[in-house]
Amino acid sequence: MNLFFSDKISSDKIILPINESKHCLYSLRKKINDHIHVMDGKGTIYSTQINSIHNGQVICIKPVIYVQEKNTINISICIAPPKNRTRFEWFLEKVTEIGVNNITPILCQNSERKKINYERCNKIILSASKQSQNCIIPKLNEFKKFNNIIKNDSGNKFIAHCQQSQTIKFKRLIKSLNKIKEVLILIGPEGDFSEKEILLAENNNFKSVNLSSKRLRTETAGIVACNMIHTLL
Amino acid sequence: MNLFFSDKISSDKIILPINESKHCLYSLRKKINDHIHVMDGKGTIYSTQINSIHNGQVICIKPVIYVQEKNTINISICIAPPKNRTRFEWFLEKVTEIGVNNITPILCQNSERKKINYERCNKIILSASKQSQNCIIPKLNEFKKFNNIIKNDSGNKFIAHCQQSQTIKFKRLIKSLNKIKEVLILIGPEGDFSEKEILLAENNNFKSVNLSSKRLRTETAGIVACNMIHTLL
Repeated sequence: MNLFFSDKISSDKIILPINESKHCLYSLRKKINDHIHVMDGKGTIYSTQINSIHNGQVICIKPVIYVQEKNTINISICIAPPKNRTRFEWFLEKVTEIGVNNITPILCQNSERKKINYERCNKIILSASKQSQNCIIPKLNEFKKFNNIIKNDSGNKFIAHCQQSQTIKFKRLIKSLNKIKEVLILIGPEGDFSEKEILLAENNNFKSVNLSSKRLRTETAGIVACNMIHTLL
Repeated sequence: MNLFFSDKISSDKIILPINESKHCLYSLRKKINDHIHVMDGKGTIYSTQINSIHNGQVICIKPVIYVQEKNTINISICIAPPKNRTRFEWFLEKVTEIGVNNITPILCQNSERKKINYERCNKIILSASKQSQNCIIPKLNEFKKFNNIIKNDSGNKFIAHCQQSQTIKFKRLIKSLNKIKEVLILIGPEGDFSEKEILLAENNNFKSVNLSSKRLRTETAGIVACNMIHTLL
């Protein structure tokens, strides 16, 4: 299945963005009248037909819903990007394949990386979404400071860290939740969250959890947490 | 915690291999009388003291058991390494962190990679074991042909593939198992297992499973399967 992305979808017409049009026409050599699939990134894939090309943009007609994702749980991961850029990019690719809704890079006391290349990261996310045929494209948010993120009002909030004595198993907690609609989990930097940060999060209704008896790398912790939620809920 | 590996551990003495000794003496600048931790790779970490250096090898005395892994489930993953070498190396690092016992690269009809660099792969596994303080070091076996691997006699055998109509959810099957001691799962190459291979596996008591409603990459499938087993059993 050749899958493309568009944010210009109406009931009778789909316009592919320039990059997607290029990929469609030049890499995959699609022609007028060919049938293709287009995702809106919000949960729907359409089956449609190429009708014309206008200013380098592919115009498709007669869109029909092909797949529509059922209402699933909304997963938000706030993560301190690791020092090594590739590790963060792998995290993005893997959680996009597994399924996540929001990714927010965070700045913590022990953070070593304070910026990321958004264009490159969003390309990785789009490519992984199309490859895995995951019709919900995760939203990569702007960097946020730890102190701002913990003021989040969502219902099921967790902070994963390695100070085992103060934590309970994430999988045990997740299993006990029933019919929840959203989960937010914080994953710390290489040097872990500071004690002050953990206390601050706990005071803002975050539950302290551990993901494994092993010491997981930041990006592994993010992938494991995301997969655990999908496995248990 | 500075963790080293040794395969020469007796009740009164531990000898570090040359590479580990170099890392201990030159990178971490450990000296005689310093306390270090040494893993045997089979489930035990010892606390011990450097006593002397002989022919470039660190000799430790008075080993005391520091951590001993409880008898957990034995996980074997047989996987067709992806074309891209880095993707296989990432798989090795991640499943070592999460916890796996045996990894066997397999040759299938659609395999694109027919050999791997064992020295490099084993270095990655050792490094990830030490970093994650996972005291069981996975065994990376020789390449095996698909037809030979399916003659395996273990009890809980699964083949993960994308022909959804013929499969049941892996997580549902795993959840239904109780007090099992071992799991073996086959993960196919980029082009998936062939229909003939799937049939052959099913005739040899493998259960056909799917890991996700998404189309996971080979290395993601391996990581997801491994983490699901840890999450559910």
